[in-house]
Amino acid sequence: MKHFTYQQVSLTEGFLAAKEKLNRDVTIHAVYNRFDETGRIGAFYFNTDAVHIFWDSDVAKWMEGASYIIAKHPNAELEAKIENLIDLIEKNQGADGYFNIYYTMKEPDGRWTKRDHHELYCAGHLFEAAVAYAEATGKERFLHLMEKYADYIHKVFVKEDSAAFSTPGHEEIELALIRMYHYTGKKKYLDLAAHFLNTRGISEKDDLENYNQSHLPIREQKEAHGHSVRAVYLYTAMADLARETNDRALKEACRALYLDIVTKKMYITGGIGACAIGETFAKPYDLPNAEAYTETCAGIGLMFFCDRMQTLENKATYADTIERILYNGLLSGLSLSGDSFFYENPLEITLLEHFSNVFGKRRFPITERKKLFSCSCCPPNINRLLPKLSEYVFGMEGETLFVNQFTAARLETENVRCEMTTAYPVNGTVTIHAEGVEKLAIRIPAWCRRFTISKAYTMEDGYAIVENDGKITVAFDMTPFTLRSNVKVIRNVGKLCVQRGPVVYCAESVDNGENLHAFAVPAALSATEAYSEEYGLPVLTVDAFRYADTDDSLYVHASESKPSFISTKLKLIPYNAFANRGESDMLVWFHEKF
Amino acid sequence: MKHFTYQQVSLTEGFLAAKEKLNRDVTIHAVYNRFDETGRIGAFYFNTDAVHIFWDSDVAKWMEGASYIIAKHPNAELEAKIENLIDLIEKNQGADGYFNIYYTMKEPDGRWTKRDHHELYCAGHLFEAAVAYAEATGKERFLHLMEKYADYIHKVFVKEDSAAFSTPGHEEIELALIRMYHYTGKKKYLDLAAHFLNTRGISEKDDLENYNQSHLPIREQKEAHGHSVRAVYLYTAMADLARETNDRALKEACRALYLDIVTKKMYITGGIGACAIGETFAKPYDLPNAEAYTETCAGIGLMFFCDRMQTLENKATYADTIERILYNGLLSGLSLSGDSFFYENPLEITLLEHFSNVFGKRRFPITERKKLFSCSCCPPNINRLLPKLSEYVFGMEGETLFVNQFTAARLETENVRCEMTTAYPVNGTVTIHAEGVEKLAIRIPAWCRRFTISKAYTMEDGYAIVENDGKITVAFDMTPFTLRSNVKVIRNVGKLCVQRGPVVYCAESVDNGENLHAFAVPAALSATEAYSEEYGLPVLTVDAFRYADTDDSLYVHASESKPSFISTKLKLIPYNAFANRGESDMLVWFHEKF
Repeated sequence: MKHFTYQQVSLTEGFLAAKEKLNRDVTIHAVYNRFDETGRIGAFYFNTDAVHIFWDSDVAKWMEGASYIIAKHPNAELEAKIENLIDLIEKNQGADGYFNIYYTMKEPDGRWTKRDHHELYCAGHLFEAAVAYAEATGKERFLHLMEKYADYIHKVFVKEDSAAFSTPGHEEIELALIRMYHYTGKKKYLDLAAHFLNTRGISEKDDLENYNQSHLPIREQKEAHGHSVRAVYLYTAMADLARETNDRALKEACRALYLDIVTKKMYITGGIGACAIGETFAKPYDLPNAEAYTETCAGIGLMFFCDRMQTLENKATYADTIERILYNGLLSGLSLSGDSFFYENPLEITLLEHFSNVFGKRRFPITERKKLFSCSCCPPNINRLLPKLSEYVFGMEGETLFVNQFTAARLETENVRCEMTTAYPVNGTVTIHAEGVEKLAIRIPAWCRRFTISKAYTMEDGYAIVENDGKITVAFDMTPFTLRSNVKVIRNVGKLCVQRGPVVYCAESVDNGENLHAFAVPAALSATEAYSEEYGLPVLTVDAFRYADTDDSLYVHASESKPSFISTKLKLIPYNAFANRGESDMLVWFHEKF
Repeated sequence: MKHFTYQQVSLTEGFLAAKEKLNRDVTIHAVYNRFDETGRIGAFYFNTDAVHIFWDSDVAKWMEGASYIIAKHPNAELEAKIENLIDLIEKNQGADGYFNIYYTMKEPDGRWTKRDHHELYCAGHLFEAAVAYAEATGKERFLHLMEKYADYIHKVFVKEDSAAFSTPGHEEIELALIRMYHYTGKKKYLDLAAHFLNTRGISEKDDLENYNQSHLPIREQKEAHGHSVRAVYLYTAMADLARETNDRALKEACRALYLDIVTKKMYITGGIGACAIGETFAKPYDLPNAEAYTETCAGIGLMFFCDRMQTLENKATYADTIERILYNGLLSGLSLSGDSFFYENPLEITLLEHFSNVFGKRRFPITERKKLFSCSCCPPNINRLLPKLSEYVFGMEGETLFVNQFTAARLETENVRCEMTTAYPVNGTVTIHAEGVEKLAIRIPAWCRRFTISKAYTMEDGYAIVENDGKITVAFDMTPFTLRSNVKVIRNVGKLCVQRGPVVYCAESVDNGENLHAFAVPAALSATEAYSEEYGLPVLTVDAFRYADTDDSLYVHASESKPSFISTKLKLIPYNAFANRGESDMLVWFHEKF
């Protein structure tokens, strides 16, 4: 299916619209201010030695996010900040088109010598920002500067082949070049993207390791490996190229990678990249909860990949996965206040284990969101994701309008209009008024077991297909339910988690007292709901059991100490809202009460 | 109660005697050879720069162990090696009595400047070795050298108070000085031990931190903290001093520390020191299985502490704990071949999690025993523990002979003789022929639920007290059983482990296939036993269940996928014998099948 642009679709109200507004009102400014305070903005003045190899990309992502915001909510202050940065880029760009603060300031003779130094990655983010600003404002000065840079990169990497490496150590430029191609229509940018993609995993100039997905040519990559953000940025570009070139082998590789991720390497929250060291995918089914790394950026990257897969084939699974990430492992990355962030998103916190021993080196999950990180890629990634959420809502194929996400939204194009009214996911009723299309393809979420549609429908790849008669009402049953993991996920054997609609729930000790591990939940869930203004979602009170405290013995004969279960209530909040009330234990997977 | 010496008691046959023999035949030589190859022996020639601050102690512990061996099994080669080392010590000892290879070779002006540099610790181990050699051979040359060193230490730390610190950063010398006092009868050594003990936690010259138990004066220490080996070496000396001085407050502190350990900080295997970083005690009930550090030396040290507590009061709990450590977390430290060692003794290995990511920094439990460690304190600690196991068997108070451990053994003193015949723990029948005592106090192990004694008995603090009539037969029911943890041990909630007699069992994937976490065991155990020559103990085959494999989905609705349990057999081997057949998953705690 084809997508609509974020300019064609507006989130009119509700949970996601509130997050979009939070980003516009708070997050975009908070990130700029932190970047200003830490010298990331100042670095663009090229008068300091305090620069870092990936700071260009941090600021570029902020520029991209700010561009999307001003496209729909003009803001002179934001636009002035972007223009100032563009002035500085123009002033300091090399005559040959090169732009990289770190190399220009610190290693002027070191250009293109270190594959892992994020030069092409930074370029890619600048390209995306330039395209975004042009799309948003029609002003193409920044884009022209970046086109000059892209042409220089073509010269270095293709025409002269003079760099010390052939493909980027951190992927990003590939998908950025394809965006540049889409905006400009210039095929040379698609060709350069294809060059980087097709050279990957085969050039003797590159370390052919799986950490940065260089272990195999891209069409032979069928398992997700290595640094998870790099991986999903690569797969996004692979899907882009597969679509543009109708490359069957590349499509197959993309499908295999997607399946490998969602059936073997993804948390229930949509988080990926289980392993903290190297920020990498772990082995299949190795999904520990307390140790879960699941970088916010990796979730965002997986959304990008799913988004591109949707443009390859009309299967609801991609929108299912986007929904899973969006309502869980992505939004957990942002505080309710909008100014603090998780870089990593654990699925369990047990403060007892955070014993501050003398050396303090044991690695524990993070327990509170930070306003900034030394590697601060995630906050501006949220900046640029939230203003574009509306792009994920609808799709179009022929005369069929696809409804991929459910949220109050308005689509307006010359030929097609659609007004969706719903408080989803607070409740499950969705009304869709569409004009200019013959059919609607309404995603039936994979989590949903009972739903009604006001018209006759047929199911196709997860979508309910209905004739459009101007008003369709769908009602999804939002009764909370329990899930279990594949038995190969060793840490979840015998455990359940609770979900309501697309929202995964968790318990915090601030609500439930110490030792969340002592709770047991029956598979047949009984829960009451109460809407929380603070979370914009219901909180749940679940009928549960608690392993009663035992005597003071550390170990007892099992036959003499049958566990006694106390009937109790377990208070659950949306996982995306955990850790907003100070340090607390947190748990997603509970013992099953048999 | 009073102890008998290892010279007065012999292990005549059976499991423990075989371990004693293995040490004598293999381990003592293997450790010497590794120490020779790595320069630890060569360092005593004082002609190399390749020395380390704690190498003196490694070799001293080996000398101590070799001394115990030659006391009962004369061996000219071992004795010549010890004598050679004594020659070198004599030759290189300072005129003032000082002996420390590292400081003499590397920092001659740095003596007594760094509290954490193990100077007094090394001295303590040399003192223990000197006493052991004198006890074993009657030759006191080494002892006299070390007495001179002790006198010098008294001068520096008491008379002149000229060291940069007041008490050792790593405890050991305290208990060593009390051994020196016992052998020589010279009260000055007891006084010096008391000085170090009583000055601890109060001197402004010392960092008053809990890492090395300096956070409080010793009588105020009621919770086990910090580096676990240091802690139990300290507590051992505290109990020694409490006994010598009949110090009530000190006894109370010892009791509190013991209870804190065994009711809050000890693994089912008797292992202590859960936390790898700093080799420290974690918080109460924080006993993770895969991350368990539980250094072999810490288990040995806890045996020492229990041994001394037995000399304070006649409670069976101390012998219970010794038994728990001995048959589990201590002997797991030694390979069946006798030449390889665990420094740490995890309670779970899951190879799936050992994903060798590119940086390789994530810390996983060790999966195979090593012939040597860079910090190789554990192997010579095994060398010196195993020849003295017979000391743990009997005790005496008034006219009562205490039987603390059950193993084929012979006690011979002028007035008291005892022959114990048993294949324990292979079976539970124990026959005790005692002469020269009025009563027997036979420990009824805390794990034991059914036993018979051939005579009328009364129970007292865990001991069955019987009149001695020359032959008593006790039969302990050795039927395997299941245990569960206190519910505060979060990683064991809903789980069981299997024990038979004092021996904790584990499963390895080499016997049971992948994913040991999928097994579930009922509390009411049904097991068959088969004696294993290799292990010297039975292996078990347990009626168990296995969570059936699920479909390819990663997450499924719980209501649509009730777990199906496959009735199966679970093969269990003694925990002390795990990892003797190559890399394998290993598990001690299994899901309970309700």
